[in-house]
Amino acid sequence: MAWFRSLIQVSAAARSATKPRISDPFSYTLLSRFSSEPAPIHETPDPQPPTQYSGLGPTKPGEKPRVVVLGTGWAGCRLMKGLDTDIYDVVCVSPRNHMVFTPLLASTCVGTLEFRSVAEPIGRIQPAISREPGSYFFLSNCVGLDPDKHLVQCETVTDGAEPLKPWKFEISYDKLVIALGAKPTTFGIQGVEEHAIFLREVYHAQEIRRKLLLNLMLSDVPGVSEEEKSRLLHCVVVGGGPTGVEFSGELSDFIPERDVRQRYSHVKNYIHVTLIEANEILSSFDDRLRHYATKQLTKSGVRLVRGIVKDVKAQKIILNDGTEVPYGLLVWSTGVGPSPLVNSLPLSKAPGGRVGVDEWLRVPSVQDVYSIGDCSGFVESTGKPTLPALAQVAERQGKYLANLLNKIGKAGGGRANGAKEYKYEDPFVYKHLGSMATLGRYKALVDLRQSKDGKGLALAGFTSWFIWRSAYLTRVLSWRNRFYVAINWATTFVFGRDITRI
Amino acid sequence: MAWFRSLIQVSAAARSATKPRISDPFSYTLLSRFSSEPAPIHETPDPQPPTQYSGLGPTKPGEKPRVVVLGTGWAGCRLMKGLDTDIYDVVCVSPRNHMVFTPLLASTCVGTLEFRSVAEPIGRIQPAISREPGSYFFLSNCVGLDPDKHLVQCETVTDGAEPLKPWKFEISYDKLVIALGAKPTTFGIQGVEEHAIFLREVYHAQEIRRKLLLNLMLSDVPGVSEEEKSRLLHCVVVGGGPTGVEFSGELSDFIPERDVRQRYSHVKNYIHVTLIEANEILSSFDDRLRHYATKQLTKSGVRLVRGIVKDVKAQKIILNDGTEVPYGLLVWSTGVGPSPLVNSLPLSKAPGGRVGVDEWLRVPSVQDVYSIGDCSGFVESTGKPTLPALAQVAERQGKYLANLLNKIGKAGGGRANGAKEYKYEDPFVYKHLGSMATLGRYKALVDLRQSKDGKGLALAGFTSWFIWRSAYLTRVLSWRNRFYVAINWATTFVFGRDITRI
Repeated sequence: MAWFRSLIQVSAAARSATKPRISDPFSYTLLSRFSSEPAPIHETPDPQPPTQYSGLGPTKPGEKPRVVVLGTGWAGCRLMKGLDTDIYDVVCVSPRNHMVFTPLLASTCVGTLEFRSVAEPIGRIQPAISREPGSYFFLSNCVGLDPDKHLVQCETVTDGAEPLKPWKFEISYDKLVIALGAKPTTFGIQGVEEHAIFLREVYHAQEIRRKLLLNLMLSDVPGVSEEEKSRLLHCVVVGGGPTGVEFSGELSDFIPERDVRQRYSHVKNYIHVTLIEANEILSSFDDRLRHYATKQLTKSGVRLVRGIVKDVKAQKIILNDGTEVPYGLLVWSTGVGPSPLVNSLPLSKAPGGRVGVDEWLRVPSVQDVYSIGDCSGFVESTGKPTLPALAQVAERQGKYLANLLNKIGKAGGGRANGAKEYKYEDPFVYKHLGSMATLGRYKALVDLRQSKDGKGLALAGFTSWFIWRSAYLTRVLSWRNRFYVAINWATTFVFGRDITRI
Repeated sequence: MAWFRSLIQVSAAARSATKPRISDPFSYTLLSRFSSEPAPIHETPDPQPPTQYSGLGPTKPGEKPRVVVLGTGWAGCRLMKGLDTDIYDVVCVSPRNHMVFTPLLASTCVGTLEFRSVAEPIGRIQPAISREPGSYFFLSNCVGLDPDKHLVQCETVTDGAEPLKPWKFEISYDKLVIALGAKPTTFGIQGVEEHAIFLREVYHAQEIRRKLLLNLMLSDVPGVSEEEKSRLLHCVVVGGGPTGVEFSGELSDFIPERDVRQRYSHVKNYIHVTLIEANEILSSFDDRLRHYATKQLTKSGVRLVRGIVKDVKAQKIILNDGTEVPYGLLVWSTGVGPSPLVNSLPLSKAPGGRVGVDEWLRVPSVQDVYSIGDCSGFVESTGKPTLPALAQVAERQGKYLANLLNKIGKAGGGRANGAKEYKYEDPFVYKHLGSMATLGRYKALVDLRQSKDGKGLALAGFTSWFIWRSAYLTRVLSWRNRFYVAINWATTFVFGRDITRI
């Protein structure tokens, strides 16, 4: 029990006395055996790291070169999955220790899927992070970058759980991959951050679920006016992209759900879903599919409103013609833009404020810095268009960059400034594999055309729904979660959705 | 789409224009079609219930008599399950819309079980609450009681999620069952409420899990001192009852867990569990079992300390001899006492401040009020001892009272003041079926003796662990959760525990 003694700073005298006597398990350590001198550690009420800005120094000749990955989204995780850990040590910095399987996130809000089924721990994506002494995951935010010194500054996430100031530390990189993703756009509309819920993280889905069930139950209480019932049970989704549409679909599925119909029979006629979009829903999809989607959603009771939101208040949104739409739940999914950190990075920018990269996803004019996913875009000089902020793009870029870095490593260019001579060959080319979206009620869209005007298969209906489910089931990363997603779907089918509010 | 029109208060002119044209699904309603008069509902910024103190009035001759149940713990849920809904309408008031299967709660903290697997929605326990027009569940707190008027006052739980003041309403009862449970005792020790986590609700388990994983990750960050690592990874459990012991067991299971050993190989030697108990652990168990438990826990690295906590600070507890024990996670399970509401109720009291009941679980000197579970105890005049605060007791009382109320109902005594003439026969007698506790590592205790000194089977080891699991698996209420618990156990066995921090 040395650890415990050292922990509570037992005096030399006491130490001799506290030899554990397992033989007699009832011999609890008597208090008298502990010294009660306050231990040094307690002299400072909230401990600081002994050395500010300690961290991981530059890698030495004997060690593997170090790839530092910022972010745990589709891009970063696919990259880490593909990196050859015989060549590189992997260090990941992110405020999230798991990847969210975003295409299935909407399903978790209404209990079709469990939250945990759509979250994949990093260590399961790249086991080296758990095993290799030189590989780490840090639950931290990147707060600064010094490309000349090959250095990133980080700050721990303390979650408010501890009376600790966040600790700063630095990490030297041989290669840096910026995969910080993007943040939801609010178009500077008042009150969005405050009153609307986004749908990008698991905790968003949890918040939506809690609110949905709270409102259901509040509206069931005696003395609630008709208007208030309608408001509480009015779910408004702003943004008609795949996320907005899929969430509306899931919601419209949830409402006629036997659990809800039964448990809230008193209020079921007040529950409604409105989808507000400034232009067309699913604008990236084939016209016939869009047409089909619109019909399906309308049929399942989703009200499609073309409008522009001007202002968001606690219980109503105001459209730009002054119409007031009361809501009980407001979900915001109007696309994404660069995060403040990305804006602040001392790097070349692409149109739209993204981190600028060349055909090989390198950030020009600095050494050993790459950027992938929603936070990056081609610099104008490449003449290439900015790619859409899709999981598909991020995943493809992560895969490409992993291979590129592995090649560079094999060619002996893994160290900082070691790839200057490296001959970059085939650049990154994005080939769109098509889009999918579910509409609820066992209906979905599958658009396999490579561009909006291109030719190719465009399916709608149950078949697509089946393809949608199978496709995602096979793309879920670990067998554990694949198993759980299947189980969740099965039990939802057999027992109905789970409406426990925990 | 009438609901939508009424919702946004469309003017007569506009109404004619907004006839939905499903035939042309692309015809979104143009904004101009909506009137922009502010709707009356919005004139008051945060709506109040139109009639304060509206609610459910006394039941009329045509209707079923109404049983109002306060609480959704073991007692209340078992009662509701047993009530004959052909005789009674059931109205349940609780801040929680589900029952927590407390014996398995400790397992959820470390990812052996999912949170949802141990939570059972009320509507699945008593389907009438979902179906019968006269039966309700209200997500509310009971705030007052008027036994003479047969009336309870309630207040909605708003969860801080809405800028709404909680709504007050009243419910008239024919029969009232007080099953409000108890609250954890802190013995007035400073800082417990603030810094320690209890283990009674699902959100407690979630908080413990988040904190455990946060500390694991924080301790892995460069620049953290040895002392700080030891502190962050020192889990202290206060209270050596079954809950405390089971949680310590689960924790000591979690630590050598391959996931943890691997992912946190850098810090695994700092992780430790200390169980602090003023007297003996598992005092209600057979000596040999206690002996066995002590040996097992010590073997799996749990430090047993006999001590009394004097003060709780943010990062250390101080024992009453002045010893300071730094901690990263502090779990408090030193038994329970009556809640402030129970204390405030205008009813006769039993020793220990519980609601006093007679042999038939009736509250004396008032009509039609019963009390069961941790919140109730026999009045002294009965000469019966206060029963321990166990799920077993609560469940037995719930079952007994359900039968009693059903009999009274059948005999036509269901209405308020209707049971005055009823002949109360066989009183409630508690027969202890024995105790179980798991120690982790596939070890458990099963004590089938009926009293501390009685004769009977007392088992320890794997067999008991197997009995423990089977017993609880069969006692889990719904097939859905039974299924999920089994699946969770299987996957934990195959894939290891899940350490995603969501």
